This record gives sequence, C-alpha cells and structure tokens, in this order.
Amino acid sequence: MPQLKPAAPPSRSHAQDLFAQTRAMTARLAQPLAPEDMMLQSMEDASPAKWHLAHTTWFFEEFILKPHAQGYRSPDERFAFLFNSYYVQAGPRHARARRGLVSRPGVRAVLDYRAHVDEALGTLLEHSDNPDVAALAELGCHHEMQHQELLVTDLLHAFSYNPLLPAYRDPEPVGVTEERPLRFARHEGGLVEVGHEGGGFSYDCEGPRHRVWLDPYEIAERPVTNREWIAFMEAGGYGEQTLWLMEGWAVRERERWDAPLYWWQQDDVWWTYTLREPQPVNLDAPVCHVSYYEAEAFARWAGGRLPSEAEWEVAFRDRPIAGNFLEQGALRPLPGGSPWGDVWEWTASSFSPYPGFRPPEGAIGEYNGKFMVNQHVLRGGSCATPAAQMRPTYRNFFYPHQRWQMMGLRLARDV
Amino acid sequence: MPQLKPAAPPSRSHAQDLFAQTRAMTARLAQPLAPEDMMLQSMEDASPAKWHLAHTTWFFEEFILKPHAQGYRSPDERFAFLFNSYYVQAGPRHARARRGLVSRPGVRAVLDYRAHVDEALGTLLEHSDNPDVAALAELGCHHEMQHQELLVTDLLHAFSYNPLLPAYRDPEPVGVTEERPLRFARHEGGLVEVGHEGGGFSYDCEGPRHRVWLDPYEIAERPVTNREWIAFMEAGGYGEQTLWLMEGWAVRERERWDAPLYWWQQDDVWWTYTLREPQPVNLDAPVCHVSYYEAEAFARWAGGRLPSEAEWEVAFRDRPIAGNFLEQGALRPLPGGSPWGDVWEWTASSFSPYPGFRPPEGAIGEYNGKFMVNQHVLRGGSCATPAAQMRPTYRNFFYPHQRWQMMGLRLARDV
Amino acid sequence: MPQLKPAAPPSRSHAQDLFAQTRAMTARLAQPLAPEDMMLQSMEDASPAKWHLAHTTWFFEEFILKPHAQGYRSPDERFAFLFNSYYVQAGPRHARARRGLVSRPGVRAVLDYRAHVDEALGTLLEHSDNPDVAALAELGCHHEMQHQELLVTDLLHAFSYNPLLPAYRDPEPVGVTEERPLRFARHEGGLVEVGHEGGGFSYDCEGPRHRVWLDPYEIAERPVTNREWIAFMEAGGYGEQTLWLMEGWAVRERERWDAPLYWWQQDDVWWTYTLREPQPVNLDAPVCHVSYYEAEAFARWAGGRLPSEAEWEVAFRDRPIAGNFLEQGALRPLPGGSPWGDVWEWTASSFSPYPGFRPPEGAIGEYNGKFMVNQHVLRGGSCATPAAQMRPTYRNFFYPHQRWQMMGLRLARDV
Amino acid sequence: MPQLKPAAPPSRSHAQDLFAQTRAMTARLAQPLAPEDMMLQSMEDASPAKWHLAHTTWFFEEFILKPHAQGYRSPDERFAFLFNSYYVQAGPRHARARRGLVSRPGVRAVLDYRAHVDEALGTLLEHSDNPDVAALAELGCHHEMQHQELLVTDLLHAFSYNPLLPAYRDPEPVGVTEERPLRFARHEGGLVEVGHEGGGFSYDCEGPRHRVWLDPYEIAERPVTNREWIAFMEAGGYGEQTLWLMEGWAVRERERWDAPLYWWQQDDVWWTYTLREPQPVNLDAPVCHVSYYEAEAFARWAGGRLPSEAEWEVAFRDRPIAGNFLEQGALRPLPGGSPWGDVWEWTASSFSPYPGFRPPEGAIGEYNGKFMVNQHVLRGGSCATPAAQMRPTYRNFFYPHQRWQMMGLRLARDV
Repeated sequence: MPQLKPAAPPSRSHAQDLFAQTRAMTARLAQPLAPEDMMLQSMEDASPAKWHLAHTTWFFEEFILKPHAQGYRSPDERFAFLFNSYYVQAGPRHARARRGLVSRPGVRAVLDYRAHVDEALGTLLEHSDNPDVAALAELGCHHEMQHQELLVTDLLHAFSYNPLLPAYRDPEPVGVTEERPLRFARHEGGLVEVGHEGGGFSYDCEGPRHRVWLDPYEIAERPVTNREWIAFMEAGGYGEQTLWLMEGWAVRERERWDAPLYWWQQDDVWWTYTLREPQPVNLDAPVCHVSYYEAEAFARWAGGRLPSEAEWEVAFRDRPIAGNFLEQGALRPLPGGSPWGDVWEWTASSFSPYPGFRPPEGAIGEYNGKFMVNQHVLRGGSCATPAAQMRPTYRNFFYPHQRWQMMGLRLARDV
Repeated sequence: MPQLKPAAPPSRSHAQDLFAQTRAMTARLAQPLAPEDMMLQSMEDASPAKWHLAHTTWFFEEFILKPHAQGYRSPDERFAFLFNSYYVQAGPRHARARRGLVSRPGVRAVLDYRAHVDEALGTLLEHSDNPDVAALAELGCHHEMQHQELLVTDLLHAFSYNPLLPAYRDPEPVGVTEERPLRFARHEGGLVEVGHEGGGFSYDCEGPRHRVWLDPYEIAERPVTNREWIAFMEAGGYGEQTLWLMEGWAVRERERWDAPLYWWQQDDVWWTYTLREPQPVNLDAPVCHVSYYEAEAFARWAGGRLPSEAEWEVAFRDRPIAGNFLEQGALRPLPGGSPWGDVWEWTASSFSPYPGFRPPEGAIGEYNGKFMVNQHVLRGGSCATPAAQMRPTYRNFFYPHQRWQMMGLRLARDV
Repeated sequence: MPQLKPAAPPSRSHAQDLFAQTRAMTARLAQPLAPEDMMLQSMEDASPAKWHLAHTTWFFEEFILKPHAQGYRSPDERFAFLFNSYYVQAGPRHARARRGLVSRPGVRAVLDYRAHVDEALGTLLEHSDNPDVAALAELGCHHEMQHQELLVTDLLHAFSYNPLLPAYRDPEPVGVTEERPLRFARHEGGLVEVGHEGGGFSYDCEGPRHRVWLDPYEIAERPVTNREWIAFMEAGGYGEQTLWLMEGWAVRERERWDAPLYWWQQDDVWWTYTLREPQPVNLDAPVCHVSYYEAEAFARWAGGRLPSEAEWEVAFRDRPIAGNFLEQGALRPLPGGSPWGDVWEWTASSFSPYPGFRPPEGAIGEYNGKFMVNQHVLRGGSCATPAAQMRPTYRNFFYPHQRWQMMGLRLARDV
Repeated sequence: MPQLKPAAPPSRSHAQDLFAQTRAMTARLAQPLAPEDMMLQSMEDASPAKWHLAHTTWFFEEFILKPHAQGYRSPDERFAFLFNSYYVQAGPRHARARRGLVSRPGVRAVLDYRAHVDEALGTLLEHSDNPDVAALAELGCHHEMQHQELLVTDLLHAFSYNPLLPAYRDPEPVGVTEERPLRFARHEGGLVEVGHEGGGFSYDCEGPRHRVWLDPYEIAERPVTNREWIAFMEAGGYGEQTLWLMEGWAVRERERWDAPLYWWQQDDVWWTYTLREPQPVNLDAPVCHVSYYEAEAFARWAGGRLPSEAEWEVAFRDRPIAGNFLEQGALRPLPGGSPWGDVWEWTASSFSPYPGFRPPEGAIGEYNGKFMVNQHVLRGGSCATPAAQMRPTYRNFFYPHQRWQMMGLRLARDV
C-alpha cells in the first residue's frame, strides 16, 4: 500500500474543495469535445482525451478507494488494466502507444466511471479521518491538473494533423503590439537553499531542500519573444551548425526543423496554429513550442545561456503568482509580460534527484523518480497550466527533443 | 474526365436499384458502431469506418456528380482532399496513415454528406441519359461493396487491439462438427480462355479475355480446414524452415507467427477472435487469416500446391453462386462447405496485367493497374464479401504478408 | 545427401576443364584487390569479395567433397558456419548482414582454403566415376560464375561509398557515338514451348519445358539506351506519378531517385561511376542500374511495355551468343549493339515455378525454389556475366527495387 | 584558426617526448592487426583501426601543420574530408557510419601518412617558438591517447561479431581469487572546489575550477566486482522492473540484456570475451561493460547510489596514480584492487558545462562542448586508458545505454 507522508497533510475541507474544483475543471475542458475528438492519439507521447478522463479517475480509485474505502467496487475491474499509465506496482497495463485504439468503453461509460468515483471519494473524504486519504486526494488532484494540461496540449498536437485545423475554442485574435526591451536582473548567488519545504503541496522530487552554491548571475525579466526568435531565424540560426549541440543538430536535420512547432510562413508572414485557431504570430508574445536543443542554440546565438534550475528558483521565489494560466482560457502565450505563466521555461539542468532524495514506498514512488535520466527541467508554468501548479519549486521535465508542450525559454548570463 | 466503356452499360433501373441497396447496406453495417468505434485506425493498411463511409461517397461525387451533375455543389470542397484515397489524377490527398487522426468532420457530418450525395445522385440517375453515368454508378457501387468488406475486416483488426475484445454483433456460437474428407476434382486443362467478357459488371483488370495453356490438374472440392491447419501446426510446420519461402520465413521470425492471426491457445484449446466474439476454433470451418507465405508452406507440407488463378477460374466458372456472404451476417467462416464464400483463396499467381490489358483513361484507370507488382491474386470471396461481388473472374489481390482479410486457401495438385 | 539428376551429366573432362577455368577466372578477378578491398560489405544484399572467394569454395566442399571424397578433411570445420550462405539443410550459418565483420580468416587463409579444395576436387574428379560428382562440379562452377558477377557488382557498390571513387581496373574512356534507331521485330506467338530441355547445363528453375500461349507481339532489337533514358528524365518521367506503379512511386520518393544508380550531373553533363572510373554517360550504351519500377515506368512513358519472359525467350532462342561479357573486361555496357550481354533485361514476369517444377531433394533444392515470391525475372546477361551463363532459358531474378546489378531493359509492344 | 590558451603551455621538450611516445604507442597497438582487421566497423559508435590511425594524424595536420608549418603539403588533400571526425569548422567530412567502407587509402598508405606528419611535426616542434604549437601538440597527443583506448575497445566490439572470437593478444588466464570485503570511506563534504586548475594538461571541459556544496557522504574503496554483479543477477535484478529507470527498462527489454556485454553462461559458469581470449569471469575483478542504466539499477538494489562527479573527485584527488592501465597490456580488469584503472566508473552526473565554461574559439572548441546533453560523466580510467590520462579532474562521458567501453561502477551512500 502506498505510503505518503507530506510535511503537513491538508485539511479535510481543503481536500474536498480541491477535489470538487479539479474534477469540475476537467469536465469543463472536455466539454467542447465530441466523442470523435476524444479518441485522438497522434503519437506515443500523447494520449486521447478520453484516456486522460479515465486515467485520472483510476488514480483516485487505485490509490485511495481500493485501499481505504471499505467495500468499494469498481464498475469494471478491467479498467485497472486499461487506465494504469506506468505504475508497475499497480499491476500490468495496456500499451501506451495503443491508447487510441480503445473505443470501448466509450465516452459515456468513462463519464459514468468518473461519476462513480466522484461519489465514492466524496463519501470517503466526508467520513475518513485518515490523514493519508486527504493527502492522497490532494496528490490525485495535482496529478489530474497535470493531465488537464496534457489534455489540451495533446489535443493541439492531434488537431494539427487534421488538414482542416479545427479550433478547440472560439477564435480570439491578438492584435499587433509594441516591442518591450529586454532587461536583466542581477542576483548575487552564494550558498543558497533550494527545493520545497514546509507547508503546501509539492511533489516528492521537489525536495529535500538543500544547499547549492551559485556564482553571481543575471536573469532576464521576461521570456524570449517571437520577435527575438524570428531575428534568430532570419540570422540563419537554424542553419548554423556551430550554434547547436551535436545531437540537437542531428535531430534538426532529421526532423527538418526551421521554425517552432506549428509555425508556417504565408506571404512573408509567420503563422501559428493554436487552440483558438491559426493566427499570425504575435511578435511580443513569448516564443512557444521550441525544444531544448533550439532553446540552447538560441541562447548561444544571443550571447547568453539558459539558467540552471537553482538560478531560476532563486529569481522567482518571491514573485507573486499571477499571469496567463489555464483557468484564464487564453490557451496560448500572450504579449504583455505575465510575471508567471505563458510558457514553461527550459533550464540548463538535467532532471536528477536532489541530494538525499528518496521516493515514497510503493507505486506512488514511481511518480517522478524513475524518469530521472535524459530529461531536462523546465520551470514556471504555461497558459495551459492550472494556477494551483504554479510555485517556485515545481520541477517539470521533458526530453530535449520534445516541443508539443507550451515550452519557451528565458535567458541568463554570467556576471 | 474519366472514360469508362463497359461492354454493355447497365440499365438505368439496375443502376438505381443497385445504388439504393448498396448505400443502405453500408448504413446497416455502420449501425452497431459508436462514433468512437468509427475513429479506429489500427494500421496504415486499414482505415476508420468513418473514412470508409466518406470515401465511398466522395467516389460518387468526384467521378459522377462533379463531371456530370450540372450545378452540383459539394457540402465542403475540402472533403476532396480528406477523402480521396489514392487517385493522383483526382488531386492531392490526405496521408493514408493519418486517416485516424481526423475527428472532424464527425460521424454526423459524414452521414449528412452521404445523404447529400445520395439525393444528388438519385436525381441524376433519374434524369440523365448518359450511359457513362449508369456505368460509373455501377462501378461506384461495386467500389462501395469492396469498402463494405474492408469496413468489417478493418474493424476486426482494430477491435483486436482492445484488451476487452469487443463484439461487433451479438455472439453466435458454432457447435462441434464432423470432419469432411478432402476430395479433389480433376480438370483436363488444355488451351482455355479466362477473364471476363460479355454482360455483367467486372473490373478492368478482369479482362481482356485471353487464352492460357493448362496442363491437367486436380483441385480440392473445399478449402483447407482448421482441423487440417492444426495438424500442420502440430507437425511443427511453423518451425520447419525447409517448408517456407525464404522471405516468408523471415517474416514469420520477425512477426513470431505460430498460428493464424487472431488465434491463441487456452487450456489446450485453440481460440479465435471474431466479429461475433472470441470463440473456440471450429475444426471444420475453412482456416482464415493466413498469409500467402503460410498458405504456400502449408501446401508444400500437404504435398500439394496452390492453384494458379486460371486453374481456379476454370474450376469455378460453372459453379452456382451460393454460400456464406456478407449479407448473411455470419461474419466468420462456417463449417459445412459453402460452394462459394467463407474465405478468399490465395492462388499461386502474382497480380499482373492480362495480355493486352489497358486501363481506362483518367483517374478511374488508377483503380487496379498501379497495384500490379508484388501482390498475389486471391479468388472466390468471403463471409465479409457482398454476394454481388462473387464471380469466377474476380481478381482480389493482397501482399503475401497480409493476414487481416478473410484469407484462406484451397489445394491443387499436378496429375 | 543432395540428389541432382541433370538430363545428361557432363563428361569428366568437361567438368575438369570447366572447374580449372572457373577457379582461375575468380582468382583473376580478385587479383587487383587489396585485403582491405576484400573486406567491404556495403549492404546486406552484397557480400565482401573475400566471402565470395570462400563461399564458392565451401560449396564444392559441402556438396561434393564431404559426401563423395572419402577421407576428406576440411582445413577448418568452422568454415561451414562462416561460409554457408542460405542452405538450411547444410546447417546453421553466420548472419548475412555481418559477413563484412569477419576479418579472420584473412585473405591469405581463404586463398589457402581455395587451394586445398582445388586439389581435393581435382583428385576426386580424376578418380571418381560417379556421374553426380561431375554434375555437381558443373553446378558448382556455374554457381561460382554467378558469384563472379556478384563479386564485381558488389565491389562497384561498395567502392561507390568511398568518396575517392576508386577504379577497380584501369580507366578506359568511351568516345562519343552516333544514335542508332530503335527497330522492333515481330513474332507471331501461338502455342509455344519454353524452358530448358536436353543437353547442356541449366538450373532447376529453367524447367520443366512447358507450353505457353503467346499473342502476336513485337520486341525491340536492342535495349533502351542512355540517350532514350535521358529523354525520359528530361520529359519529367521521374516526377510524373501516373507513369509509376504505386509501390514504385513510394520507393522513388523515399530513395529520392531522379536518375539511374551511380549517375550525377556536372556542368550539364551526366556522369556515371563505373569499375573503370567515373566517366561521362555514353548516350548509345544500354542504360544500366535501373530498378524494375523505373523500367516499368519508362516503358509506359515510351508507349510500350516490358516483354514477358516467354516472349523474350522465343525472341532470343536462335540468336548466336556473342557480345560484351565478363571475360572481355569492359565491365560496363558499351555502345554498339551487342546481340547478347551488356545488361540484364527486366521482364514483366514474376519469378514463379514453371508448371510441374520440383526442386531436387536436399540442400541443393534450396538453390532457386525458395526465392519464388516477389522477385522479377531478368533475361539475357550483362557485361559482368561469364559467357558460359548466356543461354535463352536462363532466369535471373531480383527484387523490383534493386539496382546494383547491371540491369537495363528492352521494350516490347502488342501488335 | 583555433586558439588554445592553456594556463601554462608545455615546454618544447615535454611536447617532443610526449609526441614521440604517443605515436609509438599507437603503432604498437596496431602491430598485431592484419589489414583485414583494421577495416572493421561494427557500429556507428565505433571506428576502424585504420581510421583511428589516420584521424589522429589528421588532427595534427589540420590544427598544427596547416596553420603553423609554412609550406606544409598534405600527401593528399582529400584526407581532410575522409579523416575529419566531427569538426564542423574544419570543413565537410565523410559520414561516420561509413568509415568502414573506405578501403582505399589502404593501411600502407595510412602508415605513410603517419610518417609524413611525424616528420613534419617533428621539424616544426624543433624550430617553432610559438607556444600554441607545443600546446596544440600536447592536445593532439592526449587526443590520440583517447583514440588508443577507442582503438582497442572498438576492436573488441568488432571481434565479438566474429563467430571465431579471435584474440587480439595472446591469451593470459586469470586464476581464481579470494573475495575482498567492501569498505566505505567517509567524506565530510562542505563547500569544496572541483575542476582543473594550474599546471599540467587538461581538457577545456575540466574547468573552470568552481565551488560546489557537498553533504557528508561515503564512497566505496573499490569498484563493484563481478561477484557482486552475479549476486545481483541471481537475485533477479535484471527482471525486477522497480529497480530500473523507466528508460533503462525499455532498453533492457528491447536489447534483451540479462548480463553485462560479452558475457554468456556455459555449464553454470559465466564466461566473458576479452581481448586476451574468452575466459571464465573472475569473481573479484571489477565488473565491466555495463551501461549507466544497469549501474544505476544495481546501486539501487545494493542500497546505495552512484556518486556525483564532485564526490568522486574529492575522494580521488589525493590518491597516487597507479594501477592497471593500457601500457600494462592486461587489457581487461584484474582482481586485486588497483587504486586507479581497471574500469571507468559511471557517476550520477550528467555531462554539463561547469559554471563559467567557455569553449575555446574555433574548431578546437568543438572538442567537448557540443556533446553536453544526454550523456553521463564517468570518472577514473580503465585498463584500456593510457596512464597519462589518469587525473582526478578528467571527465569522460558516454550515453547511458552504451556498454562497449570498459565501464563499471563504484558505490556511494548518504551518511
């Protein structure tokens, strides 16, 4: 049975509220989608919306209801096989690349499954005094928020293969804007502490809090913009091999990258496909859908570098949380300089365990630890991230070639 | 504009009846499917049911309504791109492997498209005296019948990736039966004529009728049964390399074939997945879902060979057409010895042009001709084939490694 | 033990002479090669020269010396594993794709192996009265001749990956020549007999002799020339999809073919790499290094078609054998119109068993039979083919995408 | 022109001695190889011995002779294309995967090339006062030492594909030994300095020296042994998914790893293929030829972890350099506990730039910097590493799936 020992378990009422809000938000995200849309799986990295709806539900069932709700019965025992993602200790599971080949149970049955679990978990939260239940419910909600983000980014990816380029939500054009100069803030570094500690939710990999030495550095006050990215492109950045990591160049050649994902040029104007329709690239919005390889090459070209995750965290730890998040519904980066949000920011740091890291016992311990190789940390949060996921210690991670998330970058430099 | 000059164009009323029946049959086949089911594409060779519904409709629109129905307007000009399969001369088209990534237009919109074309074509057939219109409508109906067969076989393939193994139609068990002995019929051969000629519909590749020399031969009176196939398996046929073509053996090793597609063993009993549910293999039904490579190896093991397509045609040309077809709804081979149907039968013949073959001008000429390499001819028809497709001259063709169609074999031998 | 029953076994002295000449010719072909050259394996279809030297030797050892030469001892029992190509019944064998990774035994040891077998077989031929021995020796010589051809064509392929484009033999330029008009010869066809019969060597797949019906046809008096091929290229033949088989087009796109293999353009002149150095394409030499797909598309563009193998055989059966063969040493097609040689000619016929074909018992029966799927027959012989291989019934066979042999085409047309 | 500014350039006489010794050592390593052996390239990661001989020579020519030796003429200008490895700024280059397809220039010509460059560089070193020349010569020698190691490890890999498993040098059995207990040494950590500084050679990526915070830790006094590895295997470590990183498990499944590379079991004894012949695994020698994934899983199973590269460096920085190196000729790890050598040790650290890292200008700057993604740092040195490469700050790096180098591990643990 999974053991989870957060520093301070959430109160029952917090868990109840969070659960209600999170589940409702997922339903809202699915609302514009037809059953046909919910079947789409455009690559192994992405999953159908229907699967996201079911998997997040299974998570509550598997890790809370089955161990803690006496007499709980699943509507279908086979869902555990269909909707487990990668938890080895929770039993065998369906092949990830074939999630899009499961038409039955259909959308209706999955929504019934959600309702069934909502009710059972509501009851359990109401009556259980076990602090693990509240803590696991909070984890399940944050897990579901991660899948909310994936649901919309996976959808964008899948829709991009439809020659009709459908809109997920009504079009909402962005006008032309004015360039904002790039400023850097200086930090003195020294022996700092990073990582999560104390109250509030965090994932296991955000701790333990530990000491890191930082030399003095500067970090940009806003992410790199499309205007700057186009300057890179026009300067031949995609064709200049010396700017690139060896491996990045090979991927670039193989994939024939010459612009961010979802971009194309039409009559000398760069366009991009978004969840709110194809639209001309706004020059002052943060650049989005670039890989680590591209981000790293851009930084070299610009005479800077990517920040380490510790540098980033120190720079953000006192910044009030406000910006362009999932709840706002813009669903693409906007010009204007949100303090948070718009895009995830690639850092120079590999995703590795912090000193002293120990994953929790049991299947829950598979949540982050087993991904700690070959991925890079992104910090911040994007226009597809729920606000409740924004915190300075959050470590998102993806492979350096991946571009389908809302990924951008922020420059740093040595002093 | 495509030119089609059948020997004798069908009468208007024949075309009208055929059109009404064919379209209704397709609708009937789609009836048990939810929108989610209609999205499934499990491999590049197969297509989603929704795509079959739309593509067959586009065929009528593109080749009849656009050139012949004055003032005809498509509900959406972009459907031509989405639903063209491989007709280069009909313009560019969507990538075949990505048909499953098109969720919009949805099922509802596709059904509306069907209704729109049904009405327009009904009107045209009623009022046009152009014999090409009736001839093309007949071709379009036979084309749609081919897709009816594909719709159900593609569905079986896609469903087989669902761990729940759903049933397309209600289960219908088959009892245990008695073995029927294998008898051969002798034919004297000589200088025979094969290929289509005269009245009735045929595809271009079935002609011209031409002379072929045949040595005397014998051909089995029924297809190879599951009982015989299991004997082959138990004799180690899948492991005895000398029985196999070099290339077949390589495929067998790579794919780890040790039984027909959709078979598995459970408590010493062989089971198979069918459109009517998983069921124990009936020993006296024709073996189904075997590749050319397997069929050829079996024939060698059994001391026979596959018939040439001319040998097959001569043996079948006077046989009354009756058996287990799509309309019957069994949807899997049955024991008992249908004269026709149950399974397509692999022949030893490559799919090549008959002497003097000239495809028609225009896009319609792409129907068969451009596939004439590396495929093998199958003759007969299966439990998923509409009755109207059964005729002695029909040349079906697939690659030697393919198994997802209802494919079996019949033995021949030299005298 | 392999059983081979040629119609008339060769005389002892014929076998002795043939053996001596064949082995000497192979040695002559290897003479210009350094040990480094003999290691090259540029693809799985090709083999290192060193392997050809050893494998042809193993063939004599395995099929003649081991069963027939009492007391014969192999210099190394492990050679049977290393140098068996694909004879399942002769035991396990090294992976084909890794022949180039065997540096030891080195060239010196392989030449010693050849000498060892030469001596043992010489002795056996001298003293044995078993007609199988002479017949198998003849087969082994013809087998070795096939590998002589492969040795030079594999070498050309491997050398083509060396940026320095080395010459196998001294350069020998070909001057500019005059165009020769294309003439066709008419044949009446009818019920003809084809296939080998009677005296002289042939492979098993060349028989049995059998009847075939041919409609009247015309066949070109010379192969297609480079001049004609360039006209096809300049007319956009490589870009016009309607000329191509579906599968051929896909290969063309994937491989980015826009000219025959080994061709490139430099200052408006087409060049080709040959075993005698890179040289400008001679316009009146037969086109070479084209795939079946290209040949078939060309024929369609030219308003003709490829001949069937029976049509080809009937047209060539009384033609005296003279032309540009391996012994001549030109090693590339020459202008001027050899009656035979220069290039192998793709036919429209799949490589299938002739009616009544039965391969011999034992491993020797694997020689041709197990390749009878998905390959096309080529007829004639090339500038890399030993003269003794030229005969009207010879059936060479390759996959439709292959181009590294000396492959061209000859047009036919219906009357 | 490359700029290299080592802290203190080496003296002329040091450079001369080092050059003479290094070049002689390479020749000695090549001595047991036939030309055939020198052609072998068994995978893209590895190169033929002949290429190593030529490439290291090109390095001196390209970076020293061409810019600094007035009037220097290359024996063949095309060698720059053939023997450049990955230096974009030094011009275009031959495809890495096809190095094994270059038979000409042959071994003789490459040895002549070496002699030509030896003489020219000898003269230049004798007469030039440019400190860059001595510094680059030193770099070129260290570069050649890296290729000495690759030459033997690439050879082992290539030979392993030869079913005869040839020996590079005479067999030299290792007897049975006694188990040595595993002891850990404690380090207090704190704010330490790591990275190279001051005199002596180092690569650019070993600096700048910088501060790192380390918590107290323990590190094993010897690498993990074969005895311990077999215990892991016998405990089911290769089959227990929860021990593995997600990605490592996927590689393990795909590659079917169940033991280190080059191991097999025979009559209950584990054997391994080495450069000195196949031999039974010595239980007390360090385990070798394991990937990062395997090392990481082993450490988890053993209740420890891999050290970070800083932890490793602190633990080794005062250790006298002695052990089992390339010069000794053992060519495989030996029992007995060398303080250095035997195997490279995987660390937990990704290969990333140290804070403030700036590669030198020009092509020389491509030496290490462009590989800084997705690779892991290994520390120490192996039985195939020249002694002069052993130093506490050396950062070797490979991909986590790679096994063909002499790779092992050492355990660490938190206090």
